Amino acid sequence: MAIQSVKGTRDLYPELLAPIRRIFDVWRSVSIRHGFLEYEGPTLEMLELYREKSGDELVGQLFRLTDAGGRELALRPEMTPTLARMVAARINALPKPIKWFSIPTLFRGENVQRGRLREFYQWNIDVIGAAEPAADAECILVGIEALRELGLTASDFCVHISNRRLVSAMLEAVKIPKEVHGRAFALMDKASSMPEADFAKVWDAAFSEQLAADRLRAVMSVPDPVLLKSELGPAVGGGELEDAILQTATVLSNLNDFGVGEYCRFDMHIVRGLAYYTGPVFEFYDRSQNERAICGGGRYDDLLGKLGKSCEPAVGFGMGDVVLSLLLEERGLSKPQRAEQVVFVADADPACRAHVYHIVAAIRRCGIPADFVYTHQPLHKQMKTADKRGATTAIILGDESGDGGATVQIKDMKKGTQRSVSMEALLQDPRRALEGAP
Amino acid sequence: MAIQSVKGTRDLYPELLAPIRRIFDVWRSVSIRHGFLEYEGPTLEMLELYREKSGDELVGQLFRLTDAGGRELALRPEMTPTLARMVAARINALPKPIKWFSIPTLFRGENVQRGRLREFYQWNIDVIGAAEPAADAECILVGIEALRELGLTASDFCVHISNRRLVSAMLEAVKIPKEVHGRAFALMDKASSMPEADFAKVWDAAFSEQLAADRLRAVMSVPDPVLLKSELGPAVGGGELEDAILQTATVLSNLNDFGVGEYCRFDMHIVRGLAYYTGPVFEFYDRSQNERAICGGGRYDDLLGKLGKSCEPAVGFGMGDVVLSLLLEERGLSKPQRAEQVVFVADADPACRAHVYHIVAAIRRCGIPADFVYTHQPLHKQMKTADKRGATTAIILGDESGDGGATVQIKDMKKGTQRSVSMEALLQDPRRALEGAP
Repeated sequence: MAIQSVKGTRDLYPELLAPIRRIFDVWRSVSIRHGFLEYEGPTLEMLELYREKSGDELVGQLFRLTDAGGRELALRPEMTPTLARMVAARINALPKPIKWFSIPTLFRGENVQRGRLREFYQWNIDVIGAAEPAADAECILVGIEALRELGLTASDFCVHISNRRLVSAMLEAVKIPKEVHGRAFALMDKASSMPEADFAKVWDAAFSEQLAADRLRAVMSVPDPVLLKSELGPAVGGGELEDAILQTATVLSNLNDFGVGEYCRFDMHIVRGLAYYTGPVFEFYDRSQNERAICGGGRYDDLLGKLGKSCEPAVGFGMGDVVLSLLLEERGLSKPQRAEQVVFVADADPACRAHVYHIVAAIRRCGIPADFVYTHQPLHKQMKTADKRGATTAIILGDESGDGGATVQIKDMKKGTQRSVSMEALLQDPRRALEGAP
Repeated sequence: MAIQSVKGTRDLYPELLAPIRRIFDVWRSVSIRHGFLEYEGPTLEMLELYREKSGDELVGQLFRLTDAGGRELALRPEMTPTLARMVAARINALPKPIKWFSIPTLFRGENVQRGRLREFYQWNIDVIGAAEPAADAECILVGIEALRELGLTASDFCVHISNRRLVSAMLEAVKIPKEVHGRAFALMDKASSMPEADFAKVWDAAFSEQLAADRLRAVMSVPDPVLLKSELGPAVGGGELEDAILQTATVLSNLNDFGVGEYCRFDMHIVRGLAYYTGPVFEFYDRSQNERAICGGGRYDDLLGKLGKSCEPAVGFGMGDVVLSLLLEERGLSKPQRAEQVVFVADADPACRAHVYHIVAAIRRCGIPADFVYTHQPLHKQMKTADKRGATTAIILGDESGDGGATVQIKDMKKGTQRSVSMEALLQDPRRALEGAP
């Protein structure tokens, strides 16, 4: 009886995993060269970890389970709560800033919609213990560098950068009271997906007195945070607004200094759904018509305080594998690397079987992939198999030379050329013998 | 409020993950050079997948959960059922033999005992579609090569090899009927952990007529399968016994031909708990007094037929990270590799801040890890940080040379030596400038 896989999960056959593995390798190497250390946490966490942090809405979408001891657990839907828990537990022992990355498997319990998986991978980059805008800029930089290394360019993606604190300060400066900022954020989040007139109607119903929709649109369209003050007019201001403008402008200028300014733009429409962001926020967008979000993140200075004893400033992002994989595939960039050399060892004479094993093992020990068939077959069959398995070089033992197996043939599978090497030389230094060094 | 982690799970802080990451890297590279392709499957499977294959005992220990649609799911306790399901779904399209590997996260739902984790990693190696003993030998070879690459030697571990089919044929040859082989296997599995006299008592109570305990002990102690016939006596025999002896002897001789004979021994005490093994079985043991099993596997020719449409011979093993990590740590072999070069970029003068970002980004783009502090600090503080972060090279911008930042100092952190390089040369080819090439 054929048992099905669980809906919304993936059977990653080798040809499907290979491009994802390439993404992981890039995520990992780019993280490391930017000074980030890798960590991992449990797939299972106590349910209350998410209740504490994410609010009831997210808890409703969790994959929940109960263990043998009756404890309520959940499959992690995001990595940040685990990170916050781990850091909080060792906050005094860890040297700051903490620069960590991880590539966890994450889960969603919701019913599956088109393109939404219930199990997926997400690269997480976080800097904890640094309030400087350079930390925000560095997180964004790492994300850009990974996409560049995967082959994407500034015409493929764009980083939209805003600042929750800046938008808050702006709302407050025009006398929209703090208590209704949540509602204002929610509306602004929907602004770009609504017809202008519809948005104006709902916005003006709530806030026309303080900031009419058409003025809001002009404000939200300024291309540079330092232009905000002149856009809002001389009567509007305050220290918090000025600080938030400076913070945002510094993130942007640091990104310029890092040499990635062309990938970035200031865009006040970016709000970010999650409740815990407190400062700069950003989203990486695919620039095609699809405009999919590749990655999102921002500053969350209050979260660690909620979960642990002491407050620590923090900034980070999550980049999933699914949208990124689609984008790379569309751009023809999802080809996995192939091994440069794959050797296939064949025996023309079954009496050489034991030598096949011996040589295969010796080549592999040099780090070169090598393969063979498990029983002797006619040579032409073995060569066909070598070809199917992508061999670049074949070694043929026991041909009709009649020298008792003292020499072997090395065949270049692309060029079709062939040369003799003594068995002794091959076993002594397989890499050298394969390179054809004299 | 501090929320705890789930019991039996691990918080893998960077210094704890690094040695595991090294194990993963070795598992992966050794798999690839032996011609295995990587696959992954879902963490979540339908509960019935395990009911079908593993029997009720294992199902009782599963981490079970129910999804929003009311389906009964489980967190995978082993990878083989997922592998069998995936292969069965594409059995006709996949070229044989299928040589695949994976490094999944696995789960146990049981209450946690000392040293038993509820979430752990396991390297899986499988060859499907090959009945030849060379396939069994190759699986064992891959395991040995990985342990060797991690630094372990023949005095650290030993592979014990038996054959279920051989033991069955032997029991049948002495007229112990098939129906009670299960009971005989269960007793033999416990033989090495029981006092001799106790074992003899229970064994003889059941089987003294066919094969007395002292004769069984002599039979099970033969060091080579080909000696079995003479040990059993000329009256005992049969084609199946001879075939099973040949199969076992071929696995052992192939291992010799692969050059790893010194790691292997024939040991009929190895039975393996899981019900699905049908041929050669093996366990890798730590050779210290602890005698922990590092890895276990064997041939399971019937499993795919149970899950899919067609039967395929198969052999494989699982090697967990937990016992292996302990062993490597005890042997002083768990040190992770460090990056050869880590550069720290410091500014002696805050006017050089923008250059710091510029240079850090340029060095990282060459693939060299580079770091810096997020705000200007006195130079001696920055150099202290460089030291703490393990920098091998420091680049110092804006010293008192007064040349307006046209040159930078490159300091070797170990030797303490320092030399000047022009900013232009550094930015043009950071790798070369850092190497000190003329």
